[in-house]
Amino acid sequence: MKEKNASKDTLLIKNVLVEGKTTDIYVDETGTIAEIGEAISRSRRKEADITIDGNGDLALPGMVNTHTHAAMTLLRGYADDMPLQAWLSEKIWPLEAHLTGDDVYWGTKLACLEMIKSGTVAFNDMYFFMEDAARAVDEMGLCAMLSYGFIDLFSEEKREAECRATERLVKALSGMRNPRIKAAVGPHAVYTVSPEGLRWLAEFSENEEIGIHIHLSETEKEVTDSVSQWKKKPVAILDECGILTPRTVAAHCCWLDRAECQILAKKGVHVSHNPASNMKLATGRAMPYHWLKEAGVSVTLGTDGCASNNNLDLFEEMKTAALLQKHAWNSQTLLPAEEALAMATAAGARALGFGTGTLAVGEPAHIILVDSRAVCNTPLHNPASNLVYSCQGSAVKTTIVQGRVLMRDRVVPGEEEILKGATRAATNLVKRARDNTG
Amino acid sequence: MKEKNASKDTLLIKNVLVEGKTTDIYVDETGTIAEIGEAISRSRRKEADITIDGNGDLALPGMVNTHTHAAMTLLRGYADDMPLQAWLSEKIWPLEAHLTGDDVYWGTKLACLEMIKSGTVAFNDMYFFMEDAARAVDEMGLCAMLSYGFIDLFSEEKREAECRATERLVKALSGMRNPRIKAAVGPHAVYTVSPEGLRWLAEFSENEEIGIHIHLSETEKEVTDSVSQWKKKPVAILDECGILTPRTVAAHCCWLDRAECQILAKKGVHVSHNPASNMKLATGRAMPYHWLKEAGVSVTLGTDGCASNNNLDLFEEMKTAALLQKHAWNSQTLLPAEEALAMATAAGARALGFGTGTLAVGEPAHIILVDSRAVCNTPLHNPASNLVYSCQGSAVKTTIVQGRVLMRDRVVPGEEEILKGATRAATNLVKRARDNTG
Repeated sequence: MKEKNASKDTLLIKNVLVEGKTTDIYVDETGTIAEIGEAISRSRRKEADITIDGNGDLALPGMVNTHTHAAMTLLRGYADDMPLQAWLSEKIWPLEAHLTGDDVYWGTKLACLEMIKSGTVAFNDMYFFMEDAARAVDEMGLCAMLSYGFIDLFSEEKREAECRATERLVKALSGMRNPRIKAAVGPHAVYTVSPEGLRWLAEFSENEEIGIHIHLSETEKEVTDSVSQWKKKPVAILDECGILTPRTVAAHCCWLDRAECQILAKKGVHVSHNPASNMKLATGRAMPYHWLKEAGVSVTLGTDGCASNNNLDLFEEMKTAALLQKHAWNSQTLLPAEEALAMATAAGARALGFGTGTLAVGEPAHIILVDSRAVCNTPLHNPASNLVYSCQGSAVKTTIVQGRVLMRDRVVPGEEEILKGATRAATNLVKRARDNTG
Repeated sequence: MKEKNASKDTLLIKNVLVEGKTTDIYVDETGTIAEIGEAISRSRRKEADITIDGNGDLALPGMVNTHTHAAMTLLRGYADDMPLQAWLSEKIWPLEAHLTGDDVYWGTKLACLEMIKSGTVAFNDMYFFMEDAARAVDEMGLCAMLSYGFIDLFSEEKREAECRATERLVKALSGMRNPRIKAAVGPHAVYTVSPEGLRWLAEFSENEEIGIHIHLSETEKEVTDSVSQWKKKPVAILDECGILTPRTVAAHCCWLDRAECQILAKKGVHVSHNPASNMKLATGRAMPYHWLKEAGVSVTLGTDGCASNNNLDLFEEMKTAALLQKHAWNSQTLLPAEEALAMATAAGARALGFGTGTLAVGEPAHIILVDSRAVCNTPLHNPASNLVYSCQGSAVKTTIVQGRVLMRDRVVPGEEEILKGATRAATNLVKRARDNTG
């Protein structure tokens, strides 16, 4: 029996460049890469239900966004350039207080559309109304790890409610039986979740064998508050509560010290670098990539939500990461193009458990084709350099997830309806918040 | 008599959003904005040779790139992620030693294509074989200020040759009688041009009433070397040599101190901020926008050449600027979206003398239309925010220079030929350099 949402069509991608070689790729009916090589199109031509002529374009593993709040696309451009506390308390939180499940559905649809159009095949999402987010992901065809943002504010009563909400989401997602959609737990951060809450989530996620998605050491205040309240830095708190595991993705990590990087390495934690958000919100320090690399931590890439970025383009994010690391740590050689590309693909896929993020036989066919004749790829001295420093998501022509073609020649079916639905949801959300405040 | 290359067609742009209002724009046969307003299409409909239905898209003044080396598009991705000296001496300079006029022509054609496709209407260029660059600009229809990169390395003999080369270029450009193409002098920097050379250029440019384009305080080494050699910082040297004028564009300016910012303000110098290049080459300090703003300096935006960026997209550069300033100077409110937009349009146009960079009656019609239904503009809470933080150059649908439509619905006539010619030039250039070294 075929799994729900797996591709039913076999797919032949002819004449693409993979690591400098002209190659064909054959994807079987389970959405798995069955063969890669020169001129396999001859033998596979008759079997393939769908044939795409890559026409010399670059084939890469799809991008993986390891930290976002997808439905915040509805807040894109709603408020920027404000002091952090005023931005949160006067703009973002009041709007979020009026969010509905329908809003999250439309916001996540818009986010999925944006990700498909910029070559992202999988993402790690933490927000509210996540059953509605899951419905959007299910329809759009992406892979996602979804978590409910757990915030107990050190109250036992709130904690109980958050535990039940987490359990409900995990049960609901499991009931969808969609292998593209995984559940995770989402402890928001050490300053919003009690140690009891963290311990409960650690145990629950271990029993359920699901991921953990958390914000870590984003701001200096988070670290200094943690030290004054608990006499410990955030990494030590999370470690004691069992949150640091190979199933864990920790976002931001700007203010880690060198010893904390070594603890994360020892525990197998995946770090999500979010350079654009960190710069826009002036967190004051870039994630110490050199220490994480030295310690052997797997570093992945994320955009954060659209209120603090304000897009979901991982091509742009690769460049921002490579530039920020060089600038912040004063090194022209830190985070070269090849590493930025691996961060956005292989490292991300492994962090979320959606394959190895490489083009290899036996891997899920999460494949993107990038226009080799675009201006950004002219001349083509070095594809990795062009992909990271010159191209943007708009150079992606075709996006394939688990063998299913979600975008072909930049056309995503249903785009117009999604843009209209999301615009309507955003407009009504702002209106509700204003009417309520006014 | 009509000027060469001025538009001969009148143009009606219907139904565009300008500062939140639905508007029409009428451009006369000289390429000047003759009328802006609601529903002028009724009266102008019969007069217009060409009508564009803006369909609710955003109309903006075109972007102005105030510091680049356009033909370095041929070096895009040729070498990255290397220590600065090795990058220059092992990769960039050896390749540049084999450049021909034909290479510069094709590299500049490619650069113009890229700029048109990302909404740039004018640029400030410093390089070699600038007559060939001018030929490319003439054909492509953009506005440009072109200067020969003057480098005498403190040798009198070299200086004489550089003076003659400068004179030749200015005469040649003047002979083209193309109002879109202006000459400037291009003293490379205080560490490559003697005080005598600087003084000659200052006087020559004053007599010719042309601009000055220079690199200033890009690296800390430039400043410390200047102090140890001349007992003065670079700004003082340029001031003494007469280089600081309202006709001057000074690029980079990372290592200015507060007093130097005040001198630049007093002299009316325009500064070109090049954030991506500065980060990629790890100059170690971001241009002090807050001090320049406080002093009243006009700050503009540039991409630098493609070897150190590696694209010419000013939308991306606006975002990088707004993010870098916030990060570097620890302020969530520094360089808000509206200021980044003005930097890339009005400030740049004024710096190069191509109008005021605004959409107003009597101004040259340098206009771009940005897709209001693109994902990056959904939802459209705040156009300025979306343009700076969410959109990229690929959201530009139409680019108009002096009333002439250079791109319509993303189609630039002749694109394929330019991509092929530039690819061929780049490939041959690398081959020549390799054969000569090997």
